[in-house]
Amino acid sequence: MDFYVMTLFPEMIDSSISHSITGRAINKGLINVRAVDIREYTTEKHGKTDDYPYGGGAGMVMQVQPVYDCYKAVCSMIDEEREKRPRVLYMSPQGRRFDQAFARELAKEDELVFLCGHYEGIDERALELLNVEEVSLGDFILTGGELPAVTMIDCISRLIPGVLGSSDSAEIESFHDNLLEYPQYSRPEEYMGLKVPDILLSGHHANVDKWRREQSIIRTLDKRPDLLEEAVLDKKEKKFLRKLLEERKDTTQDTNE
Amino acid sequence: MDFYVMTLFPEMIDSSISHSITGRAINKGLINVRAVDIREYTTEKHGKTDDYPYGGGAGMVMQVQPVYDCYKAVCSMIDEEREKRPRVLYMSPQGRRFDQAFARELAKEDELVFLCGHYEGIDERALELLNVEEVSLGDFILTGGELPAVTMIDCISRLIPGVLGSSDSAEIESFHDNLLEYPQYSRPEEYMGLKVPDILLSGHHANVDKWRREQSIIRTLDKRPDLLEEAVLDKKEKKFLRKLLEERKDTTQDTNE
Repeated sequence: MDFYVMTLFPEMIDSSISHSITGRAINKGLINVRAVDIREYTTEKHGKTDDYPYGGGAGMVMQVQPVYDCYKAVCSMIDEEREKRPRVLYMSPQGRRFDQAFARELAKEDELVFLCGHYEGIDERALELLNVEEVSLGDFILTGGELPAVTMIDCISRLIPGVLGSSDSAEIESFHDNLLEYPQYSRPEEYMGLKVPDILLSGHHANVDKWRREQSIIRTLDKRPDLLEEAVLDKKEKKFLRKLLEERKDTTQDTNE
Repeated sequence: MDFYVMTLFPEMIDSSISHSITGRAINKGLINVRAVDIREYTTEKHGKTDDYPYGGGAGMVMQVQPVYDCYKAVCSMIDEEREKRPRVLYMSPQGRRFDQAFARELAKEDELVFLCGHYEGIDERALELLNVEEVSLGDFILTGGELPAVTMIDCISRLIPGVLGSSDSAEIESFHDNLLEYPQYSRPEEYMGLKVPDILLSGHHANVDKWRREQSIIRTLDKRPDLLEEAVLDKKEKKFLRKLLEERKDTTQDTNE
């Protein structure tokens, strides 16, 4: 899969993505991440890419010309012959919230283009001409779109076959069956008086699995009860959850008395 | 403000944070970002920091010893004399959702410690010993906590006095009064047949402000109607919103006929 990142800070992209799992995926040729410097496409002789906003106000606005010409260059890098335009994701707190389901949808594309804004935003006409999809990492304000872009690239890359070492580890992690992860322990068995739960040392796989599922249910109930509505539970697990809920009801009543 | 990032990939932190506004804030001494390499604190002679999970399962778990000893080192970097323990934020999709209000809360601290997990997670006892607060960027799975940590550092840094050039630009941006941003335009007045709205060229500041507020209301209604409940609107703006809602109701009815 090919990722193109249109940015004023290309070094930020390369340096963030070249480590760990994404770095390995690039080396194996499973993904390509190409940072394209918007500044190279300005027709302004001093390399300027921003100007004051019409109508006044603080800050500068990224101008339409360099962004549009950069986009045309990216399109020609992808495939001049192809009729389909690439999906362009514009990093913006106004956009559709990025989540794992959205990542799975995006992982099916052959290529994705990310447009990273800076300053007070990008001239609205550039967003129209590129027909951007606005995507948000969350309700918070950042300096630019680069960190959200590399964050999304990391998430999407993991879903591409071959990127993760063992085929199942993407699925085992957080949100499997809409449950949070169970607690993990590794060596040593005891550290500063804190011991690994006996059951994990028992060697009894069925009991370990049951304990882990129950821990996941407890954690989800504690931290993200909203997820439980869609959780995939078998009969015994549903009974366990009901029992948990009753116990907690009792405790609350005790406290109120 | 001092940020300490406990990580297995210190290069990722330094390279992501040294550009643009955060880079300038570091140079001015307004913030310090120190990546602390967990690997340097392992007592295992080959530098290993992870091991198989007790109870079996795919993937590796970061061990408690290197994480705990790294944390002790960070504490001594901060201030050995101080009794207050630093806040330790553990990047985890199970955690409290990061947003602008949470960022404002964190910006009041003198220092923050970020713990970045990798592989299948961190030994639960490390999370207990460090008394971590779990913080989530959203419902998606990443390779490690580094990108969320630098994203949060970027967001928090902008709220520290002096980091942003002009004192008001942090406030003008997205979510001011719980409304989305109005569209921005810069030179040229016309590009590929697309013109800047006349009102922005009028020089009539009161009209420009009114138009921008109305654009913000329209956008918020279109893209994030959930924000409108808490939006700060004056009488005229409330009337404008009511009119918008009625117009849309009419359109929907027309379509249904």
